[in-house]
Amino acid sequence: MGIDGVLEGLERRDPAALARAISLVENQSDGYERVLSHLHARLGRGGSRRIGITGPPGAGKSTLTERLIQHYRGRGLRVGVIAVDPTSPFTGGALLGDRIRMESASHDPDVFIRSMATRGAHGGLATTTEEVADLLEAFGFERILIETVGVGQTELDVARTALSTVLVLVPESGDGIQTLKAGVMEIADVYVINKSDRPGADKLRAEVEVMLGIRQGNAFRHVRAHHAPADRRTAGPPDRPAEGWDPPVIATIASRGEGVAALADALDRHYGALEVGGRLVARRRERLAQRTRAALERGVRQWIAVAAQVDDLLERRLDDVVDGRRSPYEVAAEILDQMKAGAGR
Amino acid sequence: MGIDGVLEGLERRDPAALARAISLVENQSDGYERVLSHLHARLGRGGSRRIGITGPPGAGKSTLTERLIQHYRGRGLRVGVIAVDPTSPFTGGALLGDRIRMESASHDPDVFIRSMATRGAHGGLATTTEEVADLLEAFGFERILIETVGVGQTELDVARTALSTVLVLVPESGDGIQTLKAGVMEIADVYVINKSDRPGADKLRAEVEVMLGIRQGNAFRHVRAHHAPADRRTAGPPDRPAEGWDPPVIATIASRGEGVAALADALDRHYGALEVGGRLVARRRERLAQRTRAALERGVRQWIAVAAQVDDLLERRLDDVVDGRRSPYEVAAEILDQMKAGAGR
Repeated sequence: MGIDGVLEGLERRDPAALARAISLVENQSDGYERVLSHLHARLGRGGSRRIGITGPPGAGKSTLTERLIQHYRGRGLRVGVIAVDPTSPFTGGALLGDRIRMESASHDPDVFIRSMATRGAHGGLATTTEEVADLLEAFGFERILIETVGVGQTELDVARTALSTVLVLVPESGDGIQTLKAGVMEIADVYVINKSDRPGADKLRAEVEVMLGIRQGNAFRHVRAHHAPADRRTAGPPDRPAEGWDPPVIATIASRGEGVAALADALDRHYGALEVGGRLVARRRERLAQRTRAALERGVRQWIAVAAQVDDLLERRLDDVVDGRRSPYEVAAEILDQMKAGAGR
Repeated sequence: MGIDGVLEGLERRDPAALARAISLVENQSDGYERVLSHLHARLGRGGSRRIGITGPPGAGKSTLTERLIQHYRGRGLRVGVIAVDPTSPFTGGALLGDRIRMESASHDPDVFIRSMATRGAHGGLATTTEEVADLLEAFGFERILIETVGVGQTELDVARTALSTVLVLVPESGDGIQTLKAGVMEIADVYVINKSDRPGADKLRAEVEVMLGIRQGNAFRHVRAHHAPADRRTAGPPDRPAEGWDPPVIATIASRGEGVAALADALDRHYGALEVGGRLVARRRERLAQRTRAALERGVRQWIAVAAQVDDLLERRLDDVVDGRRSPYEVAAEILDQMKAGAGR
């Protein structure tokens, strides 16, 4: 299927064309930018929402995702899922999408599940995930669930591409929220205590609420506002709403579907909060600027790769580097100069 | 301290100059490439060996590192340590270097310990770690231990910059080696079963040995050679020796220092195996080529950043992108063309 065939197939809402388009994007094959450019005008018209779901291994994210799919299907919404396997060497955990694919959602044409591996895509994974989400949005999926086992910076970046991010915790996940390093708690818009019937659920909930300043009331918030300038309530990371939204803590038992409607409701309310005051528009603008920069960086990298004289020069100079006569930095500077000089020709 | 002061201080083996040089490299501050270039001619003369130590949280890597420091100090060798904190949100684990610093090694001028955080350095961490190791080597450290909690691709890449990589496992680490994803087992040259007096140690050892094909003997290896083309014994990843080295499995109780001499001995033997047939030379050449490419990429990124018209153009075109009239890719292509055209001037 050529690029024209893919574009045509996407118009007809042919799942095979979608799968092919995703592969093009994942592998950055010839023509992938043309496909994405073609679809660009259809994006951001509202109606499609991206929800990131992250949390430690074993928190029940895939079960929760499955239940959310059921919930949204019950409301007649089309659901796309991107399951990002962090290829994290020490976490275990089956590939989420693979599991879901086998189960309830597998025969529904209005559900589309795609697994993505970080291996290889490494570095640009957040951008690639966002581009695949664009394909799903243009194809007509109204909820796009982006699931990651958030064990590293890369996976956090992926979760951050979503409009709303859900952090799933479970009572047994080690030492509770103390095992969460800086950066994780701040990204979530909605907290889920899954397996909430297990021992320790109340303690975990209390910990999360204290951290969020819910339990301690205003006095606690006041203290935080003065002593923690990076507090999300007062300043917040640039791509998160700073105020007007108090992240709720939702108790679920995903295996029985309990709390899933409450979670979906919280996500709807978060979307509403984002719409107020044009925050949604501002955020989209910022992400598109980032995306353009990322596309530019990729273009430059490609330009380096295809400029034949770079490899030649590197090969010719490598003996000098190995023998210690010139450093990698000196050779890199020389090649860069030649690129700049040759670029105008 | 200016760059000249740093270079002069490094000549005098002034630890303050070393610390300053490392900060320059970590932050890519002005002059860092000059420092690295200046030292480049001294590197790769033998006598300094880099050892990566990785494994899941709680495996006792920092205790093992501490014991290795003692061992090498007992042999009169100078030891540098780079402890890489993966800033992994869900693993916990205190910063290894911080702990060690407090303890036995802290007053020995021939031991130098540096912690590095991945946050921020993200993407280029392996390169930065390698550059810091270069500083330590040029400063005269004869063993450089690079410790990572290897939970993600980035940390694996860091471990891979070492000449020899040690994977530390413990009986209680979850489901044993089944929790290790693809890529981890292949990177190790030496396996350590730490806390080997605990229940499950024998089982874990057996699992690792089966995986390595030691237990099953030749019949097993034969099967693997036919069915697993990526098997490290037959092909192996490109930067690992494919043959001539059977990774040993060493039992240790790091807290009591047991097995540490055996580990050091295995590392010496691995170095010897690498020296045979010029593999060490070939590997160094490959890494230097990679390094030069990385320096070139950084240079290009910098060039993009300083080219003022890029930001201007992006700002001017962003409305088009937001309104769907042009895609991020079209705008990126336009900017790239302008960069190429303007570069020669």
